[in-house]
Amino acid sequence: MARSLGLHALTGLPEIRPGDDLASLLTDAAAPLVPRDRDVVVVAQKVVSKAEGRYRLLSDVRPSPRALALARQVDKDPRLVELILQESVEVVRHRPGVLVVEHRLGFVMANAGIDQSNLDGGGERVLLLPEDPDASARRIRAVLEDRLGVRLGVVIADSIGRAWRLGTVGFAIGVAGLPALLDLRGRPDRAGRPLQVTEIGHADAVAAAAVLVMGEADEGTPAALVRGLDWQEDDRGMVPLLRPKATDLFR
Amino acid sequence: MARSLGLHALTGLPEIRPGDDLASLLTDAAAPLVPRDRDVVVVAQKVVSKAEGRYRLLSDVRPSPRALALARQVDKDPRLVELILQESVEVVRHRPGVLVVEHRLGFVMANAGIDQSNLDGGGERVLLLPEDPDASARRIRAVLEDRLGVRLGVVIADSIGRAWRLGTVGFAIGVAGLPALLDLRGRPDRAGRPLQVTEIGHADAVAAAAVLVMGEADEGTPAALVRGLDWQEDDRGMVPLLRPKATDLFR
Repeated sequence: MARSLGLHALTGLPEIRPGDDLASLLTDAAAPLVPRDRDVVVVAQKVVSKAEGRYRLLSDVRPSPRALALARQVDKDPRLVELILQESVEVVRHRPGVLVVEHRLGFVMANAGIDQSNLDGGGERVLLLPEDPDASARRIRAVLEDRLGVRLGVVIADSIGRAWRLGTVGFAIGVAGLPALLDLRGRPDRAGRPLQVTEIGHADAVAAAAVLVMGEADEGTPAALVRGLDWQEDDRGMVPLLRPKATDLFR
Repeated sequence: MARSLGLHALTGLPEIRPGDDLASLLTDAAAPLVPRDRDVVVVAQKVVSKAEGRYRLLSDVRPSPRALALARQVDKDPRLVELILQESVEVVRHRPGVLVVEHRLGFVMANAGIDQSNLDGGGERVLLLPEDPDASARRIRAVLEDRLGVRLGVVIADSIGRAWRLGTVGFAIGVAGLPALLDLRGRPDRAGRPLQVTEIGHADAVAAAAVLVMGEADEGTPAALVRGLDWQEDDRGMVPLLRPKATDLFR
Protein backbone atom coordinates (compact mmCIF):
# COMPACT_ATOMS: atom_id res chain seq x y z
CA MET A 1 0.00 0.00 0.00
CA ALA A 2 1.28 3.44 -0.92
CA ARG A 3 1.87 5.73 2.08
CA SER A 4 1.92 8.81 -0.13
CA LEU A 5 0.93 9.61 -3.67
CA GLY A 6 1.79 12.62 -5.77
CA LEU A 7 -0.49 13.79 -8.58
CA HIS A 8 1.08 16.24 -11.00
CA ALA A 9 -0.56 17.95 -13.97
CA LEU A 10 1.60 17.72 -17.10
CA THR A 11 1.72 21.32 -18.20
CA GLY A 12 2.91 22.76 -21.48
CA LEU A 13 1.11 20.46 -23.90
CA PRO A 14 0.06 22.31 -27.06
CA GLU A 15 -3.47 22.12 -28.47
CA ILE A 16 -3.57 18.61 -29.97
CA ARG A 17 -4.45 18.16 -33.66
CA PRO A 18 -5.06 15.08 -35.82
CA GLY A 19 -1.81 13.34 -36.63
CA ASP A 20 0.11 14.89 -33.75
CA ASP A 21 2.61 12.55 -32.12
CA LEU A 22 0.88 12.64 -28.76
CA ALA A 23 3.27 10.15 -27.15
CA SER A 24 6.26 12.35 -27.95
CA LEU A 25 4.47 15.45 -26.71
CA LEU A 26 3.63 13.61 -23.48
CA THR A 27 7.26 12.56 -23.16
CA ASP A 28 8.36 16.18 -23.36
CA ALA A 29 5.69 17.24 -20.86
CA ALA A 30 6.59 14.47 -18.41
CA ALA A 31 10.37 14.83 -18.67
CA PRO A 32 10.67 17.77 -16.20
CA LEU A 33 9.12 15.53 -13.50
CA VAL A 34 11.93 12.98 -14.07
CA PRO A 35 9.64 9.94 -14.30
CA ARG A 36 10.44 6.91 -12.17
CA ASP A 37 9.59 3.23 -12.41
CA ARG A 38 5.89 2.62 -11.74
CA ASP A 39 4.80 6.21 -12.28
CA VAL A 40 1.48 6.24 -14.14
CA VAL A 41 0.74 8.76 -16.88
CA VAL A 42 -2.95 9.56 -17.17
CA VAL A 43 -4.14 11.09 -20.45
CA ALA A 44 -7.53 12.66 -21.14
CA GLN A 45 -9.58 10.76 -23.71
CA LYS A 46 -10.19 13.92 -25.63
CA VAL A 47 -6.57 14.53 -26.60
CA VAL A 48 -6.08 10.87 -27.55
CA SER A 49 -9.15 11.11 -29.79
CA LYS A 50 -7.94 14.39 -31.28
CA ALA A 51 -4.47 13.01 -32.07
CA GLU A 52 -6.12 9.99 -33.68
CA GLY A 53 -8.37 12.20 -35.79
CA ARG A 54 -11.59 10.79 -34.38
CA TYR A 55 -13.54 13.85 -35.52
CA ARG A 56 -16.73 13.46 -37.48
CA LEU A 57 -18.64 16.18 -39.32
CA LEU A 58 -22.36 16.00 -38.61
CA SER A 59 -22.95 17.29 -42.14
CA ASP A 60 -21.40 14.04 -43.45
CA VAL A 61 -23.79 11.85 -41.45
CA ARG A 62 -27.00 10.49 -42.95
CA PRO A 63 -29.31 9.36 -40.14
CA SER A 64 -31.02 6.00 -40.48
CA PRO A 65 -34.76 5.66 -39.87
CA ARG A 66 -33.93 4.21 -36.45
CA ALA A 67 -31.77 7.23 -35.59
CA LEU A 68 -34.49 9.62 -36.80
CA ALA A 69 -37.10 7.94 -34.60
CA LEU A 70 -34.83 7.78 -31.56
CA ALA A 71 -33.70 11.40 -32.06
CA ARG A 72 -37.31 12.53 -31.78
CA GLN A 73 -37.67 10.61 -28.52
CA VAL A 74 -34.50 11.98 -26.95
CA ASP A 75 -34.69 15.45 -28.49
CA LYS A 76 -31.19 15.32 -30.00
CA ASP A 77 -29.76 15.96 -33.47
CA PRO A 78 -30.56 12.85 -35.58
CA ARG A 79 -27.08 12.93 -37.09
CA LEU A 80 -25.53 12.81 -33.62
CA VAL A 81 -27.90 9.99 -32.67
CA GLU A 82 -26.82 8.11 -35.80
CA LEU A 83 -23.18 8.37 -34.73
CA ILE A 84 -24.08 7.29 -31.18
CA LEU A 85 -25.85 4.22 -32.58
CA GLN A 86 -22.93 3.41 -34.86
CA GLU A 87 -20.59 3.53 -31.85
CA SER A 88 -22.88 1.37 -29.68
CA VAL A 89 -24.10 -2.18 -29.34
CA GLU A 90 -27.20 -1.44 -27.25
CA VAL A 91 -29.43 1.42 -26.14
CA VAL A 92 -29.59 1.02 -22.34
CA ARG A 93 -31.93 3.89 -21.40
CA HIS A 94 -33.39 6.87 -23.19
CA ARG A 95 -35.66 9.76 -22.34
CA PRO A 96 -35.84 13.36 -23.53
CA GLY A 97 -32.33 14.80 -23.28
CA VAL A 98 -30.68 11.53 -22.23
CA LEU A 99 -29.36 8.62 -24.30
CA VAL A 100 -27.39 5.99 -22.37
CA VAL A 101 -25.85 3.22 -24.46
CA GLU A 102 -23.40 0.39 -24.23
CA HIS A 103 -20.47 1.55 -26.31
CA ARG A 104 -18.99 -1.12 -28.58
CA LEU A 105 -16.03 -1.24 -26.16
CA GLY A 106 -18.36 -2.31 -23.33
CA PHE A 107 -18.65 1.01 -21.52
CA VAL A 108 -22.15 2.02 -20.38
CA MET A 109 -22.25 5.79 -20.84
CA ALA A 110 -24.27 8.70 -22.17
CA ASN A 111 -24.00 9.49 -25.90
CA ALA A 112 -21.36 6.78 -26.48
CA GLY A 113 -18.83 9.24 -25.08
CA ILE A 114 -19.15 11.50 -28.12
CA ASP A 115 -18.04 15.01 -27.34
CA GLN A 116 -19.49 18.19 -28.82
CA SER A 117 -17.74 20.83 -26.74
CA ASN A 118 -14.62 22.84 -27.44
CA LEU A 119 -14.19 21.63 -30.99
CA ASP A 120 -12.51 24.02 -33.36
CA GLY A 121 -14.95 23.37 -36.16
CA GLY A 122 -17.92 24.60 -34.14
CA GLY A 123 -21.12 22.70 -33.57
CA GLU A 124 -20.85 20.60 -36.73
CA ARG A 125 -17.80 18.68 -35.61
CA VAL A 126 -17.91 16.03 -32.92
CA LEU A 127 -15.28 13.76 -31.42
CA LEU A 128 -15.61 10.01 -30.90
CA LEU A 129 -13.76 7.88 -28.35
CA PRO A 130 -10.49 6.39 -29.61
CA GLU A 131 -10.94 3.36 -31.84
CA ASP A 132 -9.17 1.07 -29.33
CA PRO A 133 -8.13 2.92 -26.15
CA ASP A 134 -6.17 -0.03 -24.71
CA ALA A 135 -4.10 -0.08 -27.90
CA SER A 136 -3.69 3.70 -27.71
CA ALA A 137 -2.47 3.35 -24.11
CA ARG A 138 -0.03 0.62 -25.12
CA ARG A 139 1.40 2.73 -27.95
CA ILE A 140 1.81 5.77 -25.70
CA ARG A 141 3.39 3.59 -23.02
CA ALA A 142 5.91 2.09 -25.43
CA VAL A 143 7.11 5.51 -26.54
CA LEU A 144 7.23 6.95 -23.02
CA GLU A 145 9.18 3.97 -21.69
CA ASP A 146 11.57 4.00 -24.61
CA ARG A 147 12.29 7.72 -24.38
CA LEU A 148 12.31 8.04 -20.60
CA GLY A 149 14.02 4.74 -19.78
CA VAL A 150 11.63 3.71 -16.97
CA ARG A 151 8.70 1.30 -16.56
CA LEU A 152 5.45 3.25 -16.63
CA GLY A 153 1.72 2.64 -16.62
CA VAL A 154 -0.70 4.55 -18.84
CA VAL A 155 -4.39 5.21 -18.20
CA ILE A 156 -6.69 6.97 -20.64
CA ALA A 157 -9.36 8.76 -18.60
CA ASP A 158 -12.79 10.12 -19.42
CA SER A 159 -15.25 12.01 -17.23
CA ILE A 160 -18.39 9.91 -16.97
CA GLY A 161 -21.72 10.36 -15.19
CA ARG A 162 -23.08 7.89 -12.67
CA ALA A 163 -26.48 6.25 -12.29
CA TRP A 164 -27.25 7.48 -8.77
CA ARG A 165 -25.05 10.47 -8.24
CA LEU A 166 -24.81 13.81 -9.97
CA GLY A 167 -21.58 15.08 -11.44
CA THR A 168 -18.96 13.31 -13.49
CA VAL A 169 -15.90 11.52 -12.13
CA GLY A 170 -12.84 10.27 -13.98
CA PHE A 171 -13.06 6.67 -15.21
CA ALA A 172 -10.52 4.62 -17.10
CA ILE A 173 -11.34 3.78 -20.72
CA GLY A 174 -7.89 2.44 -21.68
CA VAL A 175 -5.09 0.91 -19.62
CA ALA A 176 -1.56 -0.30 -20.29
CA GLY A 177 0.88 -1.80 -17.83
CA LEU A 178 -0.95 -1.59 -14.54
CA PRO A 179 -3.93 -3.73 -13.48
CA ALA A 180 -7.33 -2.21 -14.21
CA LEU A 181 -8.88 -4.41 -11.50
CA LEU A 182 -7.07 -5.52 -8.35
CA ASP A 183 -8.19 -8.93 -7.19
CA LEU A 184 -7.73 -9.39 -3.43
CA ARG A 185 -9.65 -12.67 -3.23
CA GLY A 186 -8.16 -15.04 -0.72
CA ARG A 187 -6.45 -12.27 1.23
CA PRO A 188 -7.42 -12.32 4.93
CA ASP A 189 -8.38 -9.28 6.93
CA ARG A 190 -6.82 -8.48 10.30
CA ALA A 191 -9.25 -10.84 12.07
CA GLY A 192 -8.27 -13.69 9.74
CA ARG A 193 -11.59 -13.69 7.87
CA PRO A 194 -11.67 -13.34 4.09
CA LEU A 195 -11.80 -9.70 3.03
CA GLN A 196 -15.38 -8.66 2.34
CA VAL A 197 -14.32 -6.31 -0.44
CA THR A 198 -12.30 -8.44 -2.79
CA GLU A 199 -11.97 -6.50 -6.01
CA ILE A 200 -10.78 -2.93 -6.43
CA GLY A 201 -11.54 -0.74 -9.44
CA HIS A 202 -7.94 0.39 -9.46
CA ALA A 203 -7.65 2.07 -12.85
CA ASP A 204 -10.89 3.95 -12.25
CA ALA A 205 -9.59 5.26 -8.92
CA VAL A 206 -6.35 6.34 -10.60
CA ALA A 207 -8.36 8.12 -13.31
CA ALA A 208 -10.61 9.81 -10.74
CA ALA A 209 -7.59 10.99 -8.77
CA ALA A 210 -5.77 12.30 -11.84
CA VAL A 211 -8.80 14.23 -13.08
CA LEU A 212 -8.67 16.16 -9.78
CA VAL A 213 -5.45 17.79 -11.03
CA MET A 214 -6.28 17.69 -14.74
CA GLY A 215 -9.67 19.38 -14.47
CA GLU A 216 -12.18 19.23 -17.26
CA ALA A 217 -10.34 18.85 -20.55
CA ASP A 218 -12.03 21.95 -21.93
CA GLU A 219 -10.36 24.25 -19.48
CA GLY A 220 -7.79 22.06 -17.78
CA THR A 221 -4.60 20.16 -18.47
CA PRO A 222 -5.13 16.96 -20.44
CA ALA A 223 -2.52 14.77 -18.74
CA ALA A 224 -1.11 14.02 -15.32
CA LEU A 225 1.54 11.89 -13.69
CA VAL A 226 0.69 9.78 -10.64
CA ARG A 227 3.67 8.89 -8.48
CA GLY A 228 3.80 6.39 -5.63
CA LEU A 229 1.46 3.60 -6.73
CA ASP A 230 2.66 0.08 -6.14
CA TRP A 231 1.60 -2.22 -8.97
CA GLN A 232 2.56 -5.36 -10.78
CA GLU A 233 2.64 -5.64 -14.56
CA ASP A 234 -0.73 -6.59 -16.03
CA ASP A 235 -1.34 -6.60 -19.76
CA ARG A 236 -5.05 -7.37 -19.84
CA GLY A 237 -6.16 -3.78 -20.36
CA MET A 238 -9.73 -2.76 -19.53
CA VAL A 239 -11.48 -6.11 -19.91
CA PRO A 240 -11.18 -7.27 -16.26
CA LEU A 241 -12.84 -4.03 -15.12
CA LEU A 242 -16.01 -4.42 -17.19
CA ARG A 243 -18.90 -6.13 -15.46
CA PRO A 244 -20.06 -9.21 -17.38
CA LYS A 245 -23.62 -8.86 -18.58
CA ALA A 246 -24.59 -11.96 -16.60
CA THR A 247 -24.06 -10.05 -13.34
CA ASP A 248 -25.47 -6.73 -14.57
CA LEU A 249 -28.72 -5.93 -12.75
CA PHE A 250 -29.17 -2.52 -14.32
CA ARG A 251 -30.05 -2.81 -17.96
CA MET B 1 -7.19 24.01 -10.85
CA ALA B 2 -4.58 22.32 -8.69
CA ARG B 3 -1.24 21.75 -10.45
CA SER B 4 -0.19 19.15 -7.91
CA LEU B 5 -1.89 17.17 -5.21
CA GLY B 6 -0.39 15.19 -2.38
CA LEU B 7 -2.21 12.23 -0.84
CA HIS B 8 -0.82 11.07 2.50
CA ALA B 9 -2.00 8.13 4.60
CA LEU B 10 -2.46 9.09 8.24
CA THR B 11 -0.48 6.41 10.00
CA GLY B 12 -0.41 5.52 13.66
CA LEU B 13 -4.14 5.39 14.39
CA PRO B 14 -4.98 2.71 16.95
CA GLU B 15 -7.76 0.16 16.41
CA ILE B 16 -10.91 2.26 16.91
CA ARG B 17 -13.47 1.19 19.54
CA PRO B 18 -16.93 2.49 20.44
CA GLY B 19 -16.71 5.75 22.35
CA ASP B 20 -13.21 6.57 21.14
CA ASP B 21 -12.63 10.26 20.45
CA LEU B 22 -11.91 9.73 16.77
CA ALA B 23 -11.51 13.44 16.03
CA SER B 24 -8.73 13.76 18.60
CA LEU B 25 -7.03 10.62 17.33
CA LEU B 26 -7.20 12.02 13.78
CA THR B 27 -5.75 15.29 15.04
CA ASP B 28 -2.77 13.46 16.50
CA ALA B 29 -2.33 11.42 13.32
CA ALA B 30 -2.53 14.51 11.07
CA ALA B 31 -0.32 16.76 13.17
CA PRO B 32 3.03 15.43 11.84
CA LEU B 33 1.94 16.51 8.33
CA VAL B 34 1.48 20.09 9.62
CA PRO B 35 -1.95 20.62 8.07
CA ARG B 36 -2.55 23.74 6.00
CA ASP B 37 -5.64 25.70 5.03
CA ARG B 38 -7.77 23.75 2.56
CA ASP B 39 -6.20 20.37 3.25
CA VAL B 40 -8.92 17.70 3.25
CA VAL B 41 -8.93 14.86 5.77
CA VAL B 42 -10.58 11.72 4.40
CA VAL B 43 -11.76 9.14 6.95
CA ALA B 44 -12.90 5.60 6.24
CA GLN B 45 -16.57 5.01 7.04
CA LYS B 46 -15.69 1.97 9.06
CA VAL B 47 -13.73 3.79 11.76
CA VAL B 48 -16.40 6.49 12.03
CA SER B 49 -19.01 3.76 12.51
CA LYS B 50 -16.84 1.97 15.06
CA ALA B 51 -16.23 5.13 17.09
CA GLU B 52 -19.96 5.80 17.04
CA GLY B 53 -20.71 2.27 18.23
CA ARG B 54 -22.79 1.36 15.19
CA TYR B 55 -22.34 -2.35 15.84
CA ARG B 56 -25.33 -4.67 15.91
CA LEU B 57 -25.40 -8.25 17.12
CA LEU B 58 -27.24 -10.50 14.70
CA SER B 59 -28.40 -12.56 17.69
CA ASP B 60 -30.38 -9.51 18.87
CA VAL B 61 -32.23 -9.17 15.55
CA ARG B 62 -35.65 -10.74 14.99
CA PRO B 63 -36.32 -10.90 11.26
CA SER B 64 -39.73 -9.78 10.02
CA PRO B 65 -41.74 -11.96 7.63
CA ARG B 66 -40.62 -9.66 4.81
CA ALA B 67 -36.96 -10.13 5.76
CA LEU B 68 -37.42 -13.91 5.98
CA ALA B 69 -38.95 -14.04 2.49
CA LEU B 70 -36.34 -11.75 0.96
CA ALA B 71 -33.50 -13.63 2.70
CA ARG B 72 -34.59 -16.81 0.94
CA GLN B 73 -34.53 -15.02 -2.41
CA VAL B 74 -31.09 -13.49 -1.92
CA ASP B 75 -29.58 -16.38 0.03
CA LYS B 76 -28.47 -14.24 2.98
CA ASP B 77 -28.89 -14.44 6.76
CA PRO B 78 -32.47 -13.25 7.51
CA ARG B 79 -31.20 -11.25 10.48
CA LEU B 80 -28.77 -9.38 8.25
CA VAL B 81 -31.54 -8.81 5.71
CA GLU B 82 -33.72 -7.41 8.50
CA LEU B 83 -31.01 -4.89 9.39
CA ILE B 84 -30.55 -4.00 5.72
CA LEU B 85 -34.29 -3.35 5.40
CA GLN B 86 -34.31 -1.27 8.59
CA GLU B 87 -31.49 0.86 7.17
CA SER B 88 -33.18 1.29 3.76
CA VAL B 89 -36.09 3.02 2.16
CA GLU B 90 -36.32 0.83 -0.97
CA VAL B 91 -35.06 -2.46 -2.39
CA VAL B 92 -33.62 -1.47 -5.77
CA ARG B 93 -32.51 -4.89 -7.10
CA HIS B 94 -32.15 -8.35 -5.66
CA ARG B 95 -31.03 -11.74 -6.85
CA PRO B 96 -29.25 -14.65 -5.18
CA GLY B 97 -26.21 -13.22 -3.42
CA VAL B 98 -27.02 -9.58 -4.19
CA LEU B 99 -29.25 -7.08 -2.40
CA VAL B 100 -29.02 -3.48 -3.65
CA VAL B 101 -31.05 -0.92 -1.72
CA GLU B 102 -31.51 2.77 -1.33
CA HIS B 103 -30.08 3.50 2.10
CA ARG B 104 -32.19 5.90 4.18
CA LEU B 105 -29.47 8.51 3.53
CA GLY B 106 -30.12 8.28 -0.23
CA PHE B 107 -27.15 6.13 -1.22
CA VAL B 108 -27.86 3.29 -3.65
CA MET B 109 -25.57 0.47 -2.53
CA ALA B 110 -25.36 -3.23 -1.74
CA ASN B 111 -26.46 -4.39 1.73
CA ALA B 112 -27.13 -0.82 2.92
CA GLY B 113 -23.39 -0.52 3.46
CA ILE B 114 -23.48 -2.97 6.37
CA ASP B 115 -20.10 -4.51 6.99
CA GLN B 116 -19.47 -8.03 8.22
CA SER B 117 -15.72 -8.27 7.83
CA ASN B 118 -12.95 -7.70 10.34
CA LEU B 119 -15.24 -7.29 13.33
CA ASP B 120 -13.82 -8.33 16.65
CA GLY B 121 -16.98 -10.12 17.72
CA GLY B 122 -16.79 -12.57 14.84
CA GLY B 123 -19.57 -13.30 12.40
CA GLU B 124 -22.38 -12.33 14.77
CA ARG B 125 -21.44 -8.67 14.91
CA VAL B 126 -22.01 -6.30 12.00
CA LEU B 127 -21.39 -2.60 11.52
CA LEU B 128 -23.88 -0.09 10.13
CA LEU B 129 -23.07 3.19 8.39
CA PRO B 130 -22.87 6.21 10.72
CA GLU B 131 -26.26 7.56 11.76
CA ASP B 132 -25.62 10.92 10.00
CA PRO B 133 -22.26 10.98 8.18
CA ASP B 134 -22.49 14.69 7.28
CA ALA B 135 -22.92 15.45 10.97
CA SER B 136 -20.01 13.12 11.80
CA ALA B 137 -17.86 14.95 9.25
CA ARG B 138 -18.84 18.32 10.70
CA ARG B 139 -17.98 17.21 14.23
CA ILE B 140 -14.61 15.84 13.16
CA ARG B 141 -13.92 19.00 11.19
CA ALA B 142 -14.71 21.26 14.13
CA VAL B 143 -12.24 19.43 16.38
CA LEU B 144 -9.52 19.25 13.72
CA GLU B 145 -9.83 22.95 12.90
CA ASP B 146 -9.86 23.94 16.54
CA ARG B 147 -6.83 21.87 17.48
CA LEU B 148 -4.80 22.45 14.33
CA GLY B 149 -5.68 26.09 13.74
CA VAL B 150 -6.37 25.77 10.00
CA ARG B 151 -9.44 25.57 7.75
CA LEU B 152 -9.94 21.97 6.65
CA GLY B 153 -12.42 19.88 4.74
CA VAL B 154 -13.53 16.43 5.87
CA VAL B 155 -14.82 13.59 3.68
CA ILE B 156 -16.07 10.26 5.03
CA ALA B 157 -15.35 7.62 2.38
CA ASP B 158 -16.73 4.16 1.72
CA SER B 159 -15.74 1.63 -0.94
CA ILE B 160 -18.78 1.02 -3.10
CA GLY B 161 -19.47 -1.18 -6.13
CA ARG B 162 -20.70 0.15 -9.45
CA ALA B 163 -23.51 -0.93 -11.75
CA TRP B 164 -21.42 -1.57 -14.86
CA ARG B 165 -17.89 -2.07 -13.61
CA LEU B 166 -16.33 -4.62 -11.33
CA GLY B 167 -14.39 -3.62 -8.25
CA THR B 168 -15.12 -1.03 -5.63
CA VAL B 169 -13.99 2.59 -5.69
CA GLY B 170 -14.03 5.17 -2.90
CA PHE B 171 -17.19 7.28 -2.73
CA ALA B 172 -18.09 10.06 -0.31
CA ILE B 173 -20.84 9.33 2.21
CA GLY B 174 -20.30 12.40 4.38
CA VAL B 175 -18.81 15.83 3.66
CA ALA B 176 -17.99 18.94 5.66
CA GLY B 177 -16.47 22.18 4.43
CA LEU B 178 -15.78 21.47 0.79
CA PRO B 179 -18.37 21.18 -1.99
CA ALA B 180 -19.57 17.63 -2.68
CA LEU B 181 -20.61 18.70 -6.19
CA LEU B 182 -18.87 21.38 -8.24
CA ASP B 183 -21.25 23.26 -10.49
CA LEU B 184 -19.52 24.68 -13.58
CA ARG B 185 -22.70 25.72 -15.35
CA GLY B 186 -22.32 28.94 -17.25
CA ARG B 187 -18.54 28.58 -17.53
CA PRO B 188 -17.37 28.73 -21.15
CA ASP B 189 -14.86 26.34 -22.68
CA ARG B 190 -11.85 27.56 -24.63
CA ALA B 191 -13.96 27.93 -27.79
CA GLY B 192 -16.47 30.12 -25.95
CA ARG B 193 -19.19 27.44 -25.95
CA PRO B 194 -20.79 26.36 -22.69
CA LEU B 195 -18.87 23.49 -21.09
CA GLN B 196 -20.47 20.17 -21.98
CA VAL B 197 -19.62 18.67 -18.62
CA THR B 198 -21.08 21.03 -16.09
CA GLU B 199 -21.13 19.22 -12.80
CA ILE B 200 -18.23 17.42 -11.12
CA GLY B 201 -18.62 14.74 -8.46
CA HIS B 202 -15.88 16.39 -6.47
CA ALA B 203 -16.18 14.70 -3.08
CA ASP B 204 -16.42 11.29 -4.77
CA ALA B 205 -13.21 11.95 -6.69
CA VAL B 206 -11.48 13.05 -3.49
CA ALA B 207 -12.68 9.86 -1.78
CA ALA B 208 -11.55 7.68 -4.69
CA ALA B 209 -8.13 9.32 -4.66
CA ALA B 210 -7.71 9.01 -0.89
CA VAL B 211 -8.67 5.33 -0.90
CA LEU B 212 -5.70 4.77 -3.24
CA VAL B 213 -3.40 5.54 -0.29
CA MET B 214 -5.71 4.26 2.45
CA GLY B 215 -6.31 0.83 0.95
CA GLU B 216 -9.16 -1.36 2.09
CA ALA B 217 -9.99 -0.52 5.69
CA ASP B 218 -9.48 -4.14 6.72
CA GLU B 219 -5.81 -4.11 5.91
CA GLY B 220 -5.06 -0.46 5.22
CA THR B 221 -4.90 2.89 6.96
CA PRO B 222 -8.32 4.36 7.71
CA ALA B 223 -7.55 8.02 7.05
CA ALA B 224 -5.62 10.23 4.65
CA LEU B 225 -4.83 13.86 4.10
CA VAL B 226 -5.26 15.41 0.64
CA ARG B 227 -3.19 18.52 0.04
CA GLY B 228 -3.44 20.95 -2.84
CA LEU B 229 -7.17 21.10 -3.62
CA ASP B 230 -8.62 24.51 -4.30
CA TRP B 231 -12.13 24.81 -2.88
CA GLN B 232 -14.59 27.30 -1.52
CA GLU B 233 -16.55 26.75 1.68
CA ASP B 234 -19.77 24.81 1.12
CA ASP B 235 -21.90 23.62 4.01
CA ARG B 236 -24.51 21.63 2.13
CA GLY B 237 -22.92 18.23 2.79
CA MET B 238 -23.82 15.26 0.58
CA VAL B 239 -27.26 16.37 -0.64
CA PRO B 240 -26.14 18.14 -3.85
CA LEU B 241 -24.31 14.97 -4.94
CA LEU B 242 -27.32 12.65 -4.77
CA ARG B 243 -29.25 12.26 -8.01
CA PRO B 244 -32.90 13.24 -7.57
CA LYS B 245 -35.23 10.32 -8.19
CA ALA B 246 -36.91 12.25 -11.01
CA THR B 247 -33.75 11.96 -13.13
CA ASP B 248 -32.86 8.41 -12.05
CA LEU B 249 -33.25 6.01 -14.97
CA PHE B 250 -31.92 2.97 -13.14
CA ARG B 251 -34.35 1.82 -10.52
